Amino acid sequence: MSLPRPISGNELKSFLKNAAERVDLYLKEYVQSLKESPAKLSEAVVYSLLGPGKRIRPALVLLCHDAVGGGGGTDAGVAMPAAAAIEMIHCFSLIHDDLPAMDDDDLRRGRPTNHKVYGEALAILAGDALNTMAFELIAKEMKDPVLAVAILKELAFATGPEGMIGGQVLDTCHPEEAKSNAGPPPAAALPKLQQIHRMKTGALIRCACRMGALCGGASAQSLTAIDTYGRAIGLAFQIVDDILDVTATAEQMGKATGKDADKGKLTYPSLVGLEKSREFLGEQVKIADRVSAELGVKAALLGELAHELASRTH
Amino acid sequence: MSLPRPISGNELKSFLKNAAERVDLYLKEYVQSLKESPAKLSEAVVYSLLGPGKRIRPALVLLCHDAVGGGGGTDAGVAMPAAAAIEMIHCFSLIHDDLPAMDDDDLRRGRPTNHKVYGEALAILAGDALNTMAFELIAKEMKDPVLAVAILKELAFATGPEGMIGGQVLDTCHPEEAKSNAGPPPAAALPKLQQIHRMKTGALIRCACRMGALCGGASAQSLTAIDTYGRAIGLAFQIVDDILDVTATAEQMGKATGKDADKGKLTYPSLVGLEKSREFLGEQVKIADRVSAELGVKAALLGELAHELASRTH
Repeated sequence: MSLPRPISGNELKSFLKNAAERVDLYLKEYVQSLKESPAKLSEAVVYSLLGPGKRIRPALVLLCHDAVGGGGGTDAGVAMPAAAAIEMIHCFSLIHDDLPAMDDDDLRRGRPTNHKVYGEALAILAGDALNTMAFELIAKEMKDPVLAVAILKELAFATGPEGMIGGQVLDTCHPEEAKSNAGPPPAAALPKLQQIHRMKTGALIRCACRMGALCGGASAQSLTAIDTYGRAIGLAFQIVDDILDVTATAEQMGKATGKDADKGKLTYPSLVGLEKSREFLGEQVKIADRVSAELGVKAALLGELAHELASRTH
Repeated sequence: MSLPRPISGNELKSFLKNAAERVDLYLKEYVQSLKESPAKLSEAVVYSLLGPGKRIRPALVLLCHDAVGGGGGTDAGVAMPAAAAIEMIHCFSLIHDDLPAMDDDDLRRGRPTNHKVYGEALAILAGDALNTMAFELIAKEMKDPVLAVAILKELAFATGPEGMIGGQVLDTCHPEEAKSNAGPPPAAALPKLQQIHRMKTGALIRCACRMGALCGGASAQSLTAIDTYGRAIGLAFQIVDDILDVTATAEQMGKATGKDADKGKLTYPSLVGLEKSREFLGEQVKIADRVSAELGVKAALLGELAHELASRTH
């Protein structure tokens, strides 16, 4: 919805809470509507999809829908399939990333990972199902076929080999393939790290913003602004994640921390130190603020969200 | 293309060879067009996607396109994205089914399975990528958005929790969930087996036929006929697979045989014996023949294909 200035932190909190509740309800009803799905598969899907989580990506879809003037209240219904679908994709990636053959994590959002509860075979299949379901949901639930195809292209591109899945390949199996420059270490590794982040987590966050803007009927100019915002907030999100892996406790995060460092993975703190990482983060928040101001009063929450994400402690 | 009677086996062979070549070329060029995909990921995808294989599902898309009068020659181009996409889904399912946590197979089509060559992590991600790529390909390459959305719905439904992936859950992890009736064994298990087959392999084969018909602009009546054909040929395909698992050698099949029996899996021969299995198979071929005749001369190859599949030895 369009919100008048001044913005208080409470308005953002209430938007996020409301968005998460609506998306969860939508997802729950959608999974229940798949009558022929084996009960155990639906259970494994629901365990991860509707477990605790911040629902940041769906919230970004809905925020960006409103930010380009997509109308308030029930009009955001146009963006709900995209909001729900991107949470499915995110959830699929978490289930597969946690597998023994990948990051081998036992804890996620403070609970046992999917394969710890349902076994590896069902966890693989639950992730596969969520990947497919995201696209089915959009094809089934979006009323305008031209918009549906545009949204499907955005989501598939951000998810596939040129986006999240490609980034996961670089991060997990083949970091040597990420772009590097010829400078001296550690600066030479920065483009590598940026490419991995841009693909692995940035692509989906940027996609959330772009899908929201498209659903809101954004002008070309607004879409460009939202794209800039999406890139900045995606990068900010990952820098914070890297920082928290060093500074937060496992209890705060609901998952093991310090794992990146243990594995010698490239991270912002390991490459440029904590201070410089926080500086990079500040730059991204400034970009987000600028776009938020450019789009006017209806986009005020975009800036708020960037500040909120940058200061999160878990 | 529309073919005049009488049909010789050579015409079917030449259609299948031509279809496989066109689909392989299309797939190869499509994967090459994904410039941002990490090279190792593209390599793992291509290893399985363009390795030896019969390309039956894409051929069914193209055959059914022609069978409903979808025009010959280059007009079949309308159906190419669907033909290519369904091979991607099939290939994704093979890579994941072969994983150690699933069927744990070392050989596929006479070569080491994907995870044997590229490791488990990359094999999981290559399968994930193919799942997503199938939907991206359709959204990107089909010109008519209304048709694209219809095709996306068909393919996602056949792939997802109510189709192939759901069937794999029943087959691999939770056979107890498949429907059973109250009769005495072994007849009680027949509905279970039929449900697993209908979902695990039948759904995708039926989907190939339906997508072809939709791309060919089928009337409601022709679509119903093609649907009946798709169900029959899907079931025939699986019964033959079950029979070959008992009667063929690993060398003929290019993969381990006798594994279903070793694992105590439900199969047609194990439930009703070889003779009765062949009888069931014959019934499905008759249905296929009937539809083929009903649709007329342009659908003659549909009947031929059913006979060909029923008599395959590998």
